[in-house]
Amino acid sequence: MATIPLGLYLWRRIHEAGVHTIFGVPGDFNLQLLDQIYNVQGLKWVGNANELNAAYAADGYARVKNAPGCLVTTHGVGEMSAVNGIAGAMTEQVKVIHVVGQTTRGMQDRNLMIHHSVGFKPDHQVYNKATKAFRCTEAELYDVAKAPAEIDRVIRECIIQSKPVYIFIPLDLVDEEVPESLLDQPLDLDLPTDAFREKSIADAVPAIQEQLYASKNPAIFVDCLVQRHNAVSELKGLVEKLRFPVYTSNMGKGIIDETEPYYVGVYNGTVSAPGLTEAFRDHDLVLVIGSLPSDTNSGGFTRQIPPEKMIELFPDKVTVAKGTKTFTGCHMKNLLRKLTQSITPDKLPSITIPQLPQPPFEDDHEAKTITQSWIWHRIAAFLREWDVVYGETGTAAFGLPDATFPPNTTWITQTYFGSIGYATPSALGAELALTDLVAENKRPRGRTVLVTGDGSLQLTLQEIGTMIHYGLKPVVFVINNAGYTIERVIHGAKQPYNDIVPYNFAHMLALFGMGEAEAEENFHRVTTKAEFEDVARKESVRNPKKVQVVEVVMEPLDAPWRLVGQVATRGEESVRKMKEAGFKIREPMPRRP
Amino acid sequence: MATIPLGLYLWRRIHEAGVHTIFGVPGDFNLQLLDQIYNVQGLKWVGNANELNAAYAADGYARVKNAPGCLVTTHGVGEMSAVNGIAGAMTEQVKVIHVVGQTTRGMQDRNLMIHHSVGFKPDHQVYNKATKAFRCTEAELYDVAKAPAEIDRVIRECIIQSKPVYIFIPLDLVDEEVPESLLDQPLDLDLPTDAFREKSIADAVPAIQEQLYASKNPAIFVDCLVQRHNAVSELKGLVEKLRFPVYTSNMGKGIIDETEPYYVGVYNGTVSAPGLTEAFRDHDLVLVIGSLPSDTNSGGFTRQIPPEKMIELFPDKVTVAKGTKTFTGCHMKNLLRKLTQSITPDKLPSITIPQLPQPPFEDDHEAKTITQSWIWHRIAAFLREWDVVYGETGTAAFGLPDATFPPNTTWITQTYFGSIGYATPSALGAELALTDLVAENKRPRGRTVLVTGDGSLQLTLQEIGTMIHYGLKPVVFVINNAGYTIERVIHGAKQPYNDIVPYNFAHMLALFGMGEAEAEENFHRVTTKAEFEDVARKESVRNPKKVQVVEVVMEPLDAPWRLVGQVATRGEESVRKMKEAGFKIREPMPRRP
Repeated sequence: MATIPLGLYLWRRIHEAGVHTIFGVPGDFNLQLLDQIYNVQGLKWVGNANELNAAYAADGYARVKNAPGCLVTTHGVGEMSAVNGIAGAMTEQVKVIHVVGQTTRGMQDRNLMIHHSVGFKPDHQVYNKATKAFRCTEAELYDVAKAPAEIDRVIRECIIQSKPVYIFIPLDLVDEEVPESLLDQPLDLDLPTDAFREKSIADAVPAIQEQLYASKNPAIFVDCLVQRHNAVSELKGLVEKLRFPVYTSNMGKGIIDETEPYYVGVYNGTVSAPGLTEAFRDHDLVLVIGSLPSDTNSGGFTRQIPPEKMIELFPDKVTVAKGTKTFTGCHMKNLLRKLTQSITPDKLPSITIPQLPQPPFEDDHEAKTITQSWIWHRIAAFLREWDVVYGETGTAAFGLPDATFPPNTTWITQTYFGSIGYATPSALGAELALTDLVAENKRPRGRTVLVTGDGSLQLTLQEIGTMIHYGLKPVVFVINNAGYTIERVIHGAKQPYNDIVPYNFAHMLALFGMGEAEAEENFHRVTTKAEFEDVARKESVRNPKKVQVVEVVMEPLDAPWRLVGQVATRGEESVRKMKEAGFKIREPMPRRP
Repeated sequence: MATIPLGLYLWRRIHEAGVHTIFGVPGDFNLQLLDQIYNVQGLKWVGNANELNAAYAADGYARVKNAPGCLVTTHGVGEMSAVNGIAGAMTEQVKVIHVVGQTTRGMQDRNLMIHHSVGFKPDHQVYNKATKAFRCTEAELYDVAKAPAEIDRVIRECIIQSKPVYIFIPLDLVDEEVPESLLDQPLDLDLPTDAFREKSIADAVPAIQEQLYASKNPAIFVDCLVQRHNAVSELKGLVEKLRFPVYTSNMGKGIIDETEPYYVGVYNGTVSAPGLTEAFRDHDLVLVIGSLPSDTNSGGFTRQIPPEKMIELFPDKVTVAKGTKTFTGCHMKNLLRKLTQSITPDKLPSITIPQLPQPPFEDDHEAKTITQSWIWHRIAAFLREWDVVYGETGTAAFGLPDATFPPNTTWITQTYFGSIGYATPSALGAELALTDLVAENKRPRGRTVLVTGDGSLQLTLQEIGTMIHYGLKPVVFVINNAGYTIERVIHGAKQPYNDIVPYNFAHMLALFGMGEAEAEENFHRVTTKAEFEDVARKESVRNPKKVQVVEVVMEPLDAPWRLVGQVATRGEESVRKMKEAGFKIREPMPRRP
């Protein structure tokens, strides 16, 4: 019987699940495991500067590739450095496989004081136990005979549940042999089906239909979990057939093409563009799909859709009949497909798409310097179909939702978990996912356009170096407004704790290994709209062959109206403090054509 | 009755415990708490680039100041980013207070989907629960009436147990008022005493005495926990009185002055200087004090002192009479003091201090390039009394133990936890501790001499920027050997995963905000011994006024003999692999006069 090392089995299965790039940091309990990566054709290693960055990169990879992102860390120090990134993937429902190279079974059994452990008679599983809340399941490998099935099981769960999983592999297990023939049976990555689930969908579809047909002025509200649970094409099929007005959230942007006539805008409760809240209120039925209603994704909980108006599709259930009836076990993807098939267009109400008023220009629209009322529309105008665009938590995440994206834009923002520093390593992951997808002929290349801030960038900027090293070519806009403007809006506008170390970004690319002449060419600093225009028009920026960094100098006390509006939902005291600090409580900004 | 906000109470108590600098990263659940820092005279805020770095900085501050280090993070994203640094402080027994600004009690009670939370009906305490294994206790503040006593209790435990503690403070509790008069009662930071403990010491002292008096050739083995449990001056008193031969470990270096005649060297099992193991074996009694016997701190467990030869002082107990009798509850510090007082020198055996042979020069000692056999002694020669010197996990942690340090050197290495990236932020903390101690007239300034590697530096290099921003002036030696040499020794010497992104360090200081002309002056790159000598002789490097960076270019496949020796303890297969890769299985290096 032909056998292969368990470590090789692991990587072949992970590759089979659609993973072509492995992130992580080497450590002495994972080195032998890393060796096996090179034995799988089509699988490659990308070393990160640290493990938190690796977790973020795997998250970004997963979001773009619609396959798991995978990182490898080492016992204790590595796995605990990564945990914040894994917790983010958990709450944002992103498919991440975290492989941890553990101490040997002998070391574990004897509670040896091996480096990276805690205490005098260390429990080597202390880290495993600590992180249980941040994953949907784990494989705690110990017995080589059971290991392959465990690996298969957790890879499947990662994809089905769209959440992180862990695989713990003791060092001495890596080279133990398993039958190669186990690989003859492909991984089962299909959604579970059974009689119960089929009946659930069969019952839900007519119940939804009935409500749709009876409605007078229905709408669709689309949010990010549709993307996470891989149901975008099914949703698009339904939307095309229904052609109801479509609304989305801060996090759900880009899923439905924003240039379609039925797309209305971002419904974010009281923090919405003029006329949008009123238009939304007129709907008598809303099909809510994949909602993730955190404070930051719901205008501070002001997007309250009355339950009696809602049909709500969750990832694995649907609630109908004014909230009185729930069908469980029907996965969003399968339900959307069946529902679309079953719709008779003639029975649908005839609908007028709400037309929103053109909002007034803001009072600073003629400024020559770069303003919050200008930058987001301008960056959006830079975008092209198939781009991946990041709005880092900060002004970008609240500013970019104002802008209209081109069709097939992938919009990435970690708005619920909201960990600053996420976007830069995640953009590394996105770039690699694009590279892998193009190699598989699965989509046009597009660009990764990372929009971050000087505050957020400081947490994780090393991955700019990783991008350079691996020949990637994102366009990085760094909003340099001298500190944490998002915190200034919330509290302590002029307190020194909201200042940061001022970086001279002109030296960043060269520090991280780009040749000095190239580094100078590929770095751009702009302080006026005219300078921005010049840079945005450059061929080397529009069609980058190397990492491009555009430092955009802006005022510390200028903020997007959506951010100010979000904070204003906290009450009068917040509004008073913002005004006192000098922030404008803005009217919504104009949407540019 | 005069009242003050609870947030202010918290900082006044923390200041009272000897903390003058607070590290951390602002986040919207700690901003109001940060405001209160500015209301305590003598307390200052130092913002880090990210939370892991803040945790490491607090750890370094604590080690140098012998007071707690303190960091503030925000709910979820902040606290989880820091956890690896806290776990390190736990296993290395370092006093760290981690203050977490949590969501409001109302948000917690209603399980609101506030940003930074996990899931749909989030338990806001999920992070608190996850990190319990990495602290000795915590204050979970909720009821303002109970909060001051809880704060007092955990600060005390942090110091008494010399381990991390957490203080969780919901945002809305910060401004609630507590009686100011509570501060009239000073914090009780004394070691616990009671009848049981007094009797324990009273019984232990004669039992130890008896063995000391009966011994023929006794010795003392000193390790790092003596320093952590603040018993260094008591230990020095005992050593001066006994004048037995003194040995130490990799982690315990610097505690006993290495220029004293009774100091013999680092006893690290089979990985020791020539003659040292033999000398140690001849002792019939060893007073072992504060041992932390991890694999990395014991020559891979080859430092096996027979129990029948040992008297072992742990932080809070002592084992005597050939391991048959243990006295619990006697704190090392108190026991050492009493023991020293009780010794009658006349009754002690007369002892000859072992003289070790001068080891031979290594075969590359005439190389012009910078070698592992040369660099550690040379860096040690750069040191002066009162310096703080860091050996980052990697070649530095295994290389520097070869060198003789000047008196009153503080040696910092995270050899048990071994998290690469630790040393740079920790050195920031050390610099600030030195600044604070000098301001208190508690010690001469000394310099912080950080010896790190190109691999480790990448994880956390942002804190070089923090050093610049706060006007600090460490000397930073970066061993640039093109990747993870410590991993190359262990496995995969030439595997690409042990390579890293090559940085051009000439741009580092300027990126991090130092003026360009100054940045050029304060950066030094050396590839030969002669160049090193030139740089090490510069006044600006010897007595730095700004951060100094010295990039030391070395061979990737050159390694200190102590590291190679450590890995060789794993067995024949490891030795074979190292030889195959081209590493020398070295004879020990010469100790320079």
